[in-house]
Amino acid sequence: MPTVIAVDAMGSDKAPKPEIEGAILAAKQYHVHVLLVGREEQLRAEMAHHPSAQHLPIEIVNATEVIGMDEKVAQAVRSKRDSSMRVGLRLVREGKAAGFITAGNTGAAMATAKMVLGALPGVDRPALAAVFPSSKASATILVDVGANVDCKPHNLEQFAIMGDMYARSIFGISRPRVGLLSVGEEESKGNELTKEAYPRLKALPLNFVGNVEGRDLYNGNADVIVCDGFIGNVALKVSEGLVEAMRFLLKESLKSTISSQVGALLSKKAFSDFKKRLDYSEYGGAPLLGLKGVCIVGHGSSNANAIKNAIRVAAQFADTKINAKIEQELTHTQGVGVS
Amino acid sequence: MPTVIAVDAMGSDKAPKPEIEGAILAAKQYHVHVLLVGREEQLRAEMAHHPSAQHLPIEIVNATEVIGMDEKVAQAVRSKRDSSMRVGLRLVREGKAAGFITAGNTGAAMATAKMVLGALPGVDRPALAAVFPSSKASATILVDVGANVDCKPHNLEQFAIMGDMYARSIFGISRPRVGLLSVGEEESKGNELTKEAYPRLKALPLNFVGNVEGRDLYNGNADVIVCDGFIGNVALKVSEGLVEAMRFLLKESLKSTISSQVGALLSKKAFSDFKKRLDYSEYGGAPLLGLKGVCIVGHGSSNANAIKNAIRVAAQFADTKINAKIEQELTHTQGVGVS
Repeated sequence: MPTVIAVDAMGSDKAPKPEIEGAILAAKQYHVHVLLVGREEQLRAEMAHHPSAQHLPIEIVNATEVIGMDEKVAQAVRSKRDSSMRVGLRLVREGKAAGFITAGNTGAAMATAKMVLGALPGVDRPALAAVFPSSKASATILVDVGANVDCKPHNLEQFAIMGDMYARSIFGISRPRVGLLSVGEEESKGNELTKEAYPRLKALPLNFVGNVEGRDLYNGNADVIVCDGFIGNVALKVSEGLVEAMRFLLKESLKSTISSQVGALLSKKAFSDFKKRLDYSEYGGAPLLGLKGVCIVGHGSSNANAIKNAIRVAAQFADTKINAKIEQELTHTQGVGVS
Repeated sequence: MPTVIAVDAMGSDKAPKPEIEGAILAAKQYHVHVLLVGREEQLRAEMAHHPSAQHLPIEIVNATEVIGMDEKVAQAVRSKRDSSMRVGLRLVREGKAAGFITAGNTGAAMATAKMVLGALPGVDRPALAAVFPSSKASATILVDVGANVDCKPHNLEQFAIMGDMYARSIFGISRPRVGLLSVGEEESKGNELTKEAYPRLKALPLNFVGNVEGRDLYNGNADVIVCDGFIGNVALKVSEGLVEAMRFLLKESLKSTISSQVGALLSKKAFSDFKKRLDYSEYGGAPLLGLKGVCIVGHGSSNANAIKNAIRVAAQFADTKINAKIEQELTHTQGVGVS
């Protein structure tokens, strides 16, 4: 039996094109069955451009509403009861799909997923994990980047357990190095939250490497880094802003160094290589960890390849039963009295 | 009368060479008198290599101890009573110098400055300000990056007033746009701290532009951004780490695109251009705002030019009487009952 994955066909900036093409790629390459969720008529019309996809395991599920990128989250989630996100996540809750992916409004995806799927037993706050490239071959997972603000020490503890499981199940790292994001390496460095979280993380049955600093997001010194979602969100957006600024400055520099056309071309190539590594959609999107069900959030700018990768990762999440493992780990940890 | 600036001659990674050369450049170019503070014998020997500097307004002040880059701050500050930092800052307190600069251990500089100079009336926590380059012509000042962790709303209020004065006095911006670092632009977005700080910042007689996000550090959307020092420290170090990672990845990419030697050369040029813009020492170091006296902290990797710039900025701080203005502004603000 192929793994059934529901795809928000209306999510990305250029929806539904990347979603449909990504679904076709995934259905060809992986053992998956895709449910494309969105405005049925529009999706049928778009699918008609891909006659070769006729025999692929792709179905359309109708959802009449769409949550826009700039909509106010609380209101949109409450009022749009037939949104593609809500319908797609309902398919997961009802067992009709093993996972859901969306490249739509991240805030709306988090809120809808929490509402429709709910959190795993033992999880107080589901968290969004993002992958940062490093100069080494590896990558670093940061949990939480989803603006779970004003976290308590036990939230960071749960983020660590969930991030560890993610690194093991999806990245195949056998004993992930887990770090706590702080402002200095010594145990005594940090704020109230990190100082309280430190001994709790140390007591977990994980490969805890202690405090790490901002620069460790990019140097491969840790596989998983946990932090309050406010900090994680700032770290992610500072990175995006810096890449944009560098793209601009580098182009200027290369243009002034050599012929302007060659310089522009070179910088374009160099940057697309780098962005490819930085953009988490290339890693298959950012998973929401700690939910009763699988939900992967991609970037709004996702192309067909990014959607395909997100579908692959959603299927991996489902197939490796990562949620059951997280639940077990949390129950065990809380059972031994750490939390 | 030239402005007298005390320079920690033992601070930088390659001390005292960059400090001495920077002092010579500054004494030639600006209307300053430099007091080089450090091990007298070593400094005399080094100065002997610069016979042309004999008639410049540079004096040596002996200090027998040095605080190392990796020393534990609390202990070093307490025990080394004759450190170049302590002696240099004492010269400021005693009115023998109008300002002090160091490229040494940032934590030790902050702690020593607070101890020796003390905070201005109305300032609860002095703050370290760093300058971030942007893709536009302008730059953005972030306060605090000095790990003043667990800040309260009134701390951010003071950071805003001090940052505004810094932007006006040193960067010549007549009405700096002041933003509050958060995770979304709407007033309702943020954590407990930013939500409480927002209305207080709005009530200040500043050009408050509301919440800004991580990416706004690099796009010129604000002249001054305030945040808790934990966040500011992470933002600064994430940026440093990302620049390092990009340097590596860009080199690989350029090498694979064109001949490897040309690629390596190009990426080196492009990066040194960019680093020059990113490195805050190029802007004359990071000032500690809110002290009874002027103290500028440079990067450990400062070269002679960076030291020269820091001396210039210290003199500007002294000459524009920025501290008196901050004190006045704070007294005024507190007088009208905002704080």
